Amino acid sequence: MIDPMLKNLEQLFPADFTEEQKAQAKTQFLKNMAVEAHRFYGGKMQTVPKCGLYGLNWFNVWYTPGVSKISTTIREDNDASFALSNRGNLVAVVSDSTRVLGDGDCTPPGGLGVMEGKAMIMKYLGGVDAVALCVDSKGPDGINNPDKLIDFVKMLQHSFGAINLEDISQPNCFKVLDELREACDIPVWHDDAQGTACVTLAGLLNALKLAEKKLSNVKIVLLGAGASNTTIARLIIADGGDPAKMIIFDTKGSLHPEREDIKNDKRNYRKWELCTKTNPEKILSMEEAMNGADVLIALSTPEPDTVKREWIRSMAEKAIVFACANPVPEIWPYAAKEEGAYIVATGRGDFPNQVNNSVCFPGILKGALLVRARKITDGMAIRCAHSIADFSEKRGINPDDIIAKMDETEVFAVEAADVAEQAIKESVARINLSWDEVYIHAKADITAARALVEDMKKAGHIKEPPPEMFEAALQAAIESVHRMH
Amino acid sequence: MIDPMLKNLEQLFPADFTEEQKAQAKTQFLKNMAVEAHRFYGGKMQTVPKCGLYGLNWFNVWYTPGVSKISTTIREDNDASFALSNRGNLVAVVSDSTRVLGDGDCTPPGGLGVMEGKAMIMKYLGGVDAVALCVDSKGPDGINNPDKLIDFVKMLQHSFGAINLEDISQPNCFKVLDELREACDIPVWHDDAQGTACVTLAGLLNALKLAEKKLSNVKIVLLGAGASNTTIARLIIADGGDPAKMIIFDTKGSLHPEREDIKNDKRNYRKWELCTKTNPEKILSMEEAMNGADVLIALSTPEPDTVKREWIRSMAEKAIVFACANPVPEIWPYAAKEEGAYIVATGRGDFPNQVNNSVCFPGILKGALLVRARKITDGMAIRCAHSIADFSEKRGINPDDIIAKMDETEVFAVEAADVAEQAIKESVARINLSWDEVYIHAKADITAARALVEDMKKAGHIKEPPPEMFEAALQAAIESVHRMH
Repeated sequence: MIDPMLKNLEQLFPADFTEEQKAQAKTQFLKNMAVEAHRFYGGKMQTVPKCGLYGLNWFNVWYTPGVSKISTTIREDNDASFALSNRGNLVAVVSDSTRVLGDGDCTPPGGLGVMEGKAMIMKYLGGVDAVALCVDSKGPDGINNPDKLIDFVKMLQHSFGAINLEDISQPNCFKVLDELREACDIPVWHDDAQGTACVTLAGLLNALKLAEKKLSNVKIVLLGAGASNTTIARLIIADGGDPAKMIIFDTKGSLHPEREDIKNDKRNYRKWELCTKTNPEKILSMEEAMNGADVLIALSTPEPDTVKREWIRSMAEKAIVFACANPVPEIWPYAAKEEGAYIVATGRGDFPNQVNNSVCFPGILKGALLVRARKITDGMAIRCAHSIADFSEKRGINPDDIIAKMDETEVFAVEAADVAEQAIKESVARINLSWDEVYIHAKADITAARALVEDMKKAGHIKEPPPEMFEAALQAAIESVHRMH
Repeated sequence: MIDPMLKNLEQLFPADFTEEQKAQAKTQFLKNMAVEAHRFYGGKMQTVPKCGLYGLNWFNVWYTPGVSKISTTIREDNDASFALSNRGNLVAVVSDSTRVLGDGDCTPPGGLGVMEGKAMIMKYLGGVDAVALCVDSKGPDGINNPDKLIDFVKMLQHSFGAINLEDISQPNCFKVLDELREACDIPVWHDDAQGTACVTLAGLLNALKLAEKKLSNVKIVLLGAGASNTTIARLIIADGGDPAKMIIFDTKGSLHPEREDIKNDKRNYRKWELCTKTNPEKILSMEEAMNGADVLIALSTPEPDTVKREWIRSMAEKAIVFACANPVPEIWPYAAKEEGAYIVATGRGDFPNQVNNSVCFPGILKGALLVRARKITDGMAIRCAHSIADFSEKRGINPDDIIAKMDETEVFAVEAADVAEQAIKESVARINLSWDEVYIHAKADITAARALVEDMKKAGHIKEPPPEMFEAALQAAIESVHRMH
């Protein structure tokens, strides 16, 4: 019998399954459950009134004729929209679905499951409302055009307090983010880049504390030079990491100042910056780079053989391995541990040390929204990383628990307050609030969001999936693993 | 003491207030309340999970790695998105805020109060989720460009089950609607035009029953030739009204075949169609047109002197007057009644006979969504009008109650089933469901939406506004009327 909280999965697989087979069966079970559960509920999010409706006469307040005064008040002062409409607590999760988690281009509606998931996490963990918008950014030539996406978000921005860009393939994602950050008067956050960088930095800071190493001294190899890893490199350097001790690999090899292919493609300007700063010795192979490395941060191909066992074996003492491809890490955690890794982190919640932006974006966006920030700066992202790391350290860390998990409500309210304070410091906030004011407001909204979901379950507004759904998903997962071997 | 359900407003104004002063004070009170209540709640709508969250492990189903299967399933079959994401029950309320109710161009965020109101009504009355999107459609020249809005909605459509266009000024609204209806593979509904036309036709059908007159025989004057009234004229004619007995006025006079100004502006093709069909006698003045008219349908300037008392006095026996400008009718109902009108309808809920699209769009969109319609045809809109009229007749009508009110839950489920049936008949539905299946599903969703709001009030998730808010709004309203006189 499967526990409805999915706590006893491991024990339900056949006793003769290897670790690898168990991992595969688990992934397959979660995928099977996803399809049936999404169908059961018809997606994940709904829109619900948050205002009092006391009989029909209230429609005259919420709608015509009363609402006329909302229209004219906002017309006179557009900033009034943050207080008088949902806008003040509302984020658009915008994607062109061209690089949906590890599944590549999924066609415009193909990203809806992920973006709604983002919206769900935003609400449940950060007390922030959010809407999933998966858009078709293809031009008449059938090619995704970053300018179309930029124009779309510029048109959209007046209805939201912040924009969360998501799962846009590179190099388009860089142009889209950088132009929109300039053009919009609300934060434009690229969660794959800034969010992943923020939480990876947080995890790295604490992993280094446990390994008793210093950020400025460690040799770091980054495998993959997409939006996430290039931003991770930028934030690590900005926070004190030594670029001369950093080697970054893309699909064509390591980044260095002679990579003319990167230099010549203007859309790659972010990558080119890193070519000029890192890998001064021009090390060309992963084998050589990994030899004696203190840290590996892989965000590349979701395939468990992408990172070789022998690479891990050649790393320095107390090696730190981040294998964060989704949905499947570049090396299974048990394999990395067998090869001597001291700390292993992945992007997944079903292994220890999940390094996932979910522990960052609900808090950073909540903080930005509460002070009506115009931007989220790199300074705010770095502050958020330290906020997560310090919070986690205070409540206790160990090699299998380097940073706070998503279910630690408290971390998000602390992040929000820290980030809001930084926004005020950097003069990008529209309003001033004290650390305590932000903390209390964020905490109340997060608590309210969770209490609402609990009450909805109790009152039957959210029904439990039938036990047969669990059983069928489990049996199908076991059979598919049997077929593979 | 004001009743929190706002039922005893009339008794709270000074005894020496005239009817007109009371009407003004009421409008002012509702506007004052709107500002404070919107501020109190921070807008009207929120996003809330509708799926089960049973501990942290469920994030592995709703998000990575499980959600990957949603992405790939939808990529293989885009129509799967209707079942596996919110899309199947989700409407985008899209406006460029250029003609927000009676307040004209309100700048992009200025429409948020109205569009969120729409989203609230959609959920509460139709069990449909909806998102307010007020967008900036201005080009580099600062002029609102219909092509930008068209492109925006085309990009957006993959995340929604239907689009509700709203409060777009003419003539842009015609082009935007007609091009999008062709280009999109989901219904694009223009509520100001089709919704108002549908509910006006419903009201007219029942008013004529009470007056014992026939649609094909009556003389109808339409004051205003905007999106609403031109669509009303089209639907009335399509449903059997006689265009030769119809006279339509815009701001420059009556429509007739010699209106070269309309003929020469291609953007006015909808108006030009009516110039060629109606008013064969080329009657030029309202005075003459109104003489002996059976029906006046005014959707023009929100000002109580727009329709003159003497015009009403000159109408035929059992005259029917629709004075539907928002937020203020073209003539106060009491004045029209004093001049002999038999039935008076307005757009407002605080007078008898509210002719407001709120009684139509939640039901018609619910029906279209449930069968995953590709379009909402004129045939479906006319069917909806008859659905509303017949439902109202069955439960009893009289001159002060010609059509169902928003709080009659039942009407929306019946509309949904009728409209879905018509969609299947006209081959614009993606799936086939029986009348009963649609009715039962719609009824359940509507009941659930209302029950959720009630439970949220009971459990304190929605708090009651403080009594001081009511008192302050009332005092300010009374003072403003005193200042006016």
